Amino acid sequence: MNFGPEGGAETGRISLVGAGPGAADLLTIRALRALQSADVVLYDRLISPEVLELIDPRAERLFVGKEVGACAWPQQAINQLMVALAQSGKYVVRLKSGDPNVFGRADEERVAADHAGIPIEVIPGITAASAAAASLGQSLTSRGVSDRVIFATGTCREGDAPPDIATLLQPGSSVALYMATKMAGALREQLLAAGFPAQMAVEVVASASTPSERQLRTTVGCLPEAMKDAGISHPAIIFLRAAKEVSGAELTTETRGLAPV
Amino acid sequence: MNFGPEGGAETGRISLVGAGPGAADLLTIRALRALQSADVVLYDRLISPEVLELIDPRAERLFVGKEVGACAWPQQAINQLMVALAQSGKYVVRLKSGDPNVFGRADEERVAADHAGIPIEVIPGITAASAAAASLGQSLTSRGVSDRVIFATGTCREGDAPPDIATLLQPGSSVALYMATKMAGALREQLLAAGFPAQMAVEVVASASTPSERQLRTTVGCLPEAMKDAGISHPAIIFLRAAKEVSGAELTTETRGLAPV
Repeated sequence: MNFGPEGGAETGRISLVGAGPGAADLLTIRALRALQSADVVLYDRLISPEVLELIDPRAERLFVGKEVGACAWPQQAINQLMVALAQSGKYVVRLKSGDPNVFGRADEERVAADHAGIPIEVIPGITAASAAAASLGQSLTSRGVSDRVIFATGTCREGDAPPDIATLLQPGSSVALYMATKMAGALREQLLAAGFPAQMAVEVVASASTPSERQLRTTVGCLPEAMKDAGISHPAIIFLRAAKEVSGAELTTETRGLAPV
Repeated sequence: MNFGPEGGAETGRISLVGAGPGAADLLTIRALRALQSADVVLYDRLISPEVLELIDPRAERLFVGKEVGACAWPQQAINQLMVALAQSGKYVVRLKSGDPNVFGRADEERVAADHAGIPIEVIPGITAASAAAASLGQSLTSRGVSDRVIFATGTCREGDAPPDIATLLQPGSSVALYMATKMAGALREQLLAAGFPAQMAVEVVASASTPSERQLRTTVGCLPEAMKDAGISHPAIIFLRAAKEVSGAELTTETRGLAPV
């Protein structure tokens, strides 16, 4: 327990910090400062070693992720630990890969902190789709071609229906599918059944921005086999695009990913 | 024209750099380094003064944005200037608010560079919706409630249809609407016509992360008037959410924004 200058017990605080996609220099300056002033850092499996190196050496580091083949820390246990550490006066950084607001369960941790009366903030991070798009050299939106981008996940809460990508993929849309490597086969079936062509372009980027980054450009028809051949596994982003109906003369960008509409 | 150590002409290069939402410390470390090593920086109207202060003082700064009430630089003129500067051997940073890959027309500038044989990279940035969500204390996705987030724009290419938000807002979706302050009235009409209730919650965040940030929590029925009363104008993000059908017992997060489905 720390005590403030008046001798009273001092409550700590919590920052949910986006670690970005993996490259240490894709952290924000605000995130770096949080890592350098934290008393304790709770981190996940996907946090890269080079990001962990930025943590103040005096800070305590606690791994709360899921080892391959082992049980994950239940979310509630993470919430309780995080709150208890802050209640003992510490500045707790909860380090999450990507952006805490995108598939990061930030709201569950925020509710736990709010219930305990602990100040909590979110420091946003570069989400994987953004880094993957930068690596591919392909925008998430493209004026006159795709006016919206949809971040969806292939890993929903147990019992929830998987995402209906074919319906999301309206003309003018790009879809970035997170945590979807296991549903590549189901995705192909879904898209073909909805009338998308087997030769429709798909891009996959695994471990964007890290030394183990892999890119794959393939088609819907070949997706599961091509991913297997390329050795692509979690974490990866699968990109799909359905362009608006445009005339060739209007196009200022590549037309890959065009779906018949 | 610069000359390399061998005396030959040296071609420059281009980085499309995401400046993030406005706060200087929400730049990535990689973006900061680019600003500190650029020969020339081309920047837009929405780049905040504190971000501009990070540019190396020896670098040339060129404003290529749109002054209020004045004509914008045509995209093609920006492309040509950027390419010409790089061809003269300079390291050109094209600084864009938010993330170049999200409504940033990065692909058009990439195509121009590719055609001229100039090396070009994208340094991703924190997009406005992410910063706005962090400010609101509200995630973009919420496990079991919204499994996808859609970034859409209210400002499409001239002649294109405005976005059909009512259709995008399927159960389980969050929508972050960029550049949509002018379509607040049309948005209300669209949502009410589609059967969404007037009391459905809407959040608006203007100038997220900057000293002039404003937040508004209102309803679809009051949206245009409330935005006017709050003095909210461009740039702002409008958030809408349609939750999955969930039982109260399953909810671990706030239920604001629930639309009847």
